[in-house]
Amino acid sequence: MRQAVLNLEESKIREVANAGFGSSDVLPFWFGESDEVTPEAIRAAGIASLQAGETFYSHNLGLPELRQAVADYTSRLHRPLGPERIGITSGGVSALIVAMQALIDAGDRVVAVTPVWPNLTAQPRILGADLHCVPLHADADGAWRLDLPALLAAITPGTRLLVVNSPNNPTGWTLSQAEQAAILDHCRGTGTWILADEVYERLYYAGDTASGAAPSFLDVARPDDRLVVVQSFSKAFLMTGWRLGYLVMPADMTPQVGKLLEFNTSCAPVFVQRAALAAVQQTEAITPRIVAHLKGCRDALVPLLQAVPGVRTSAAPGGMYAFLRIEGFDDSLGLAKRLVAEAAIGLAPGVAFGPEAEGWLRWCFASKDVARLGEGVARLRRWLG
Amino acid sequence: MRQAVLNLEESKIREVANAGFGSSDVLPFWFGESDEVTPEAIRAAGIASLQAGETFYSHNLGLPELRQAVADYTSRLHRPLGPERIGITSGGVSALIVAMQALIDAGDRVVAVTPVWPNLTAQPRILGADLHCVPLHADADGAWRLDLPALLAAITPGTRLLVVNSPNNPTGWTLSQAEQAAILDHCRGTGTWILADEVYERLYYAGDTASGAAPSFLDVARPDDRLVVVQSFSKAFLMTGWRLGYLVMPADMTPQVGKLLEFNTSCAPVFVQRAALAAVQQTEAITPRIVAHLKGCRDALVPLLQAVPGVRTSAAPGGMYAFLRIEGFDDSLGLAKRLVAEAAIGLAPGVAFGPEAEGWLRWCFASKDVARLGEGVARLRRWLG
Repeated sequence: MRQAVLNLEESKIREVANAGFGSSDVLPFWFGESDEVTPEAIRAAGIASLQAGETFYSHNLGLPELRQAVADYTSRLHRPLGPERIGITSGGVSALIVAMQALIDAGDRVVAVTPVWPNLTAQPRILGADLHCVPLHADADGAWRLDLPALLAAITPGTRLLVVNSPNNPTGWTLSQAEQAAILDHCRGTGTWILADEVYERLYYAGDTASGAAPSFLDVARPDDRLVVVQSFSKAFLMTGWRLGYLVMPADMTPQVGKLLEFNTSCAPVFVQRAALAAVQQTEAITPRIVAHLKGCRDALVPLLQAVPGVRTSAAPGGMYAFLRIEGFDDSLGLAKRLVAEAAIGLAPGVAFGPEAEGWLRWCFASKDVARLGEGVARLRRWLG
Repeated sequence: MRQAVLNLEESKIREVANAGFGSSDVLPFWFGESDEVTPEAIRAAGIASLQAGETFYSHNLGLPELRQAVADYTSRLHRPLGPERIGITSGGVSALIVAMQALIDAGDRVVAVTPVWPNLTAQPRILGADLHCVPLHADADGAWRLDLPALLAAITPGTRLLVVNSPNNPTGWTLSQAEQAAILDHCRGTGTWILADEVYERLYYAGDTASGAAPSFLDVARPDDRLVVVQSFSKAFLMTGWRLGYLVMPADMTPQVGKLLEFNTSCAPVFVQRAALAAVQQTEAITPRIVAHLKGCRDALVPLLQAVPGVRTSAAPGGMYAFLRIEGFDDSLGLAKRLVAEAAIGLAPGVAFGPEAEGWLRWCFASKDVARLGEGVARLRRWLG
């Protein structure tokens, strides 16, 4: 087997979760997923499609009506665009690797902002890229910030691709519109493509944008900029297990992505796309409730954590995670395993997301029952003290 | 964008199909798909899962109970093996590209037997492989044969991977067990991996094997041989649109594939896997009927075609295609387009599968209504003269 594949790390989150198997009383906050089932109206659309016998192959780039609906939805959130810039994929992660397949040759220089969801750094490695990571930094208050000049300096004329995830998993850090404009301007000069993972855009709580969504590169880019935005139905519609996402890209890239989709997954199931179509068409009835609930989760959890002696964390503007550090514990994997075994709390170790997050812990607050979060903090307090 | 991606050919099958849009009276035999909906019992299992709220992430390698069921099913058809050798994927095509990601570095020498489904030769190109094709040859009777010494000579000690599809799409050519043993023995000597696309194994009509399935590399290989077999639920269970497949591989490769699945698709939807579990558990009630019907389709179509003056074709031992040549027509793409426009018959051009198949046409005989096949031949006769 390839050395590049053997070198890929197993998930450290899963390593912690495995340590908790068999103890059913663990409160699991480790995975990036709500514990709430997909809304009934969305499931009903998928079921109706199956009952109608829609079990055949479909277009590589997705059902035309879904591409149109996604284009309309994106146009409402950002700038007007058409379905010729949309490609439907089998999940956000498939969108990411297909975009990278379109852009990265083995040996190409790729820059990524970290800490980040490990898939974003593993994928360039699978494709043989020369990966350079630019770290975010944590302030004294527990909020994470970008050193913009350092990022721009790393994006050299020879850099093929910038990979950036904002709102960021795990830190909640979110690019400002001004930072996006500066990055885009710089990348125009170096000829660098931007691959922006914006799957948490709707889970944004700052209230400082017209649409309510997080600032997006789509708000500042021209249609022909070297920009690919990755989206997913997982977060804003509670559809993690359906495996559906999409790409927003320059129109002349779409046929190339269509070819690559044929060779990666061929197409997404029609009944999954029908469910997603129902989701997008009913987003006003579905998403604001989800976002309001998640904001409530965040606003319940973070003050409780901040009141625990020795804990440092900040209310993130976006995403569904609290990212925290506990004084005196520098080994996040060891700490997470102890918390599972000794306190029955399941958290993700920061080191899973990059070395600069060593010592930190990620706590997913997407909990249907907000009281679970309080119970988790109570367990942490008991264990610490 | 990458030159390797720009160089990938658009599907010539789709080019023909596009030429037929707007004329609803075309009989479509161009795609590799039955026109029969997935059996009700399979759809019901998927629907029940959705109703039960199984809408969350799952294991990268698939549900443990599905992996066990697939291992049992494979053990019945071939040699005993356990679930540690099975990985569930989002379609056969995803299984193929993930296997190639595990095995091929850019620049590696890859040998493929052609003509073949174009995805099998496009995927190594996407990964930057150095691809060498070994052509099959058509006999005077229209049956295709392998030049085994030529194939073995192409598999040099520096060859990383052999890609072979048997029963073959488009020709129906099927490797004998003796040929598989000779190829395996040779590849053991050169250290070459074998990636065997055996998705048509159940659609086998020769009746010369104990299981009824086509000869498989799994019948002759040891558990630790460098062999990866790709399978799909599409053909034997009429589940094309569900996008579910699996890999059979050496046990020590499975964790590596698990990592790659995380970075390609994460996991297949649970409700799709529940449907597949029902399919495998009820295969005796489902698959023999499908295979018998397809054999009936083949045995109806091929003699009718052979009776058309100037047509050369042979009853294929496996698959769901008649592969034919019409005297006096050497440009298969041009011919296929004319047949759509002038005769309202939709066939796939042979050149889509490799240059050695130029002049040939692929006719998918997976038709619920056998009379459609006769109507197609009648149209061909009228058009020819």
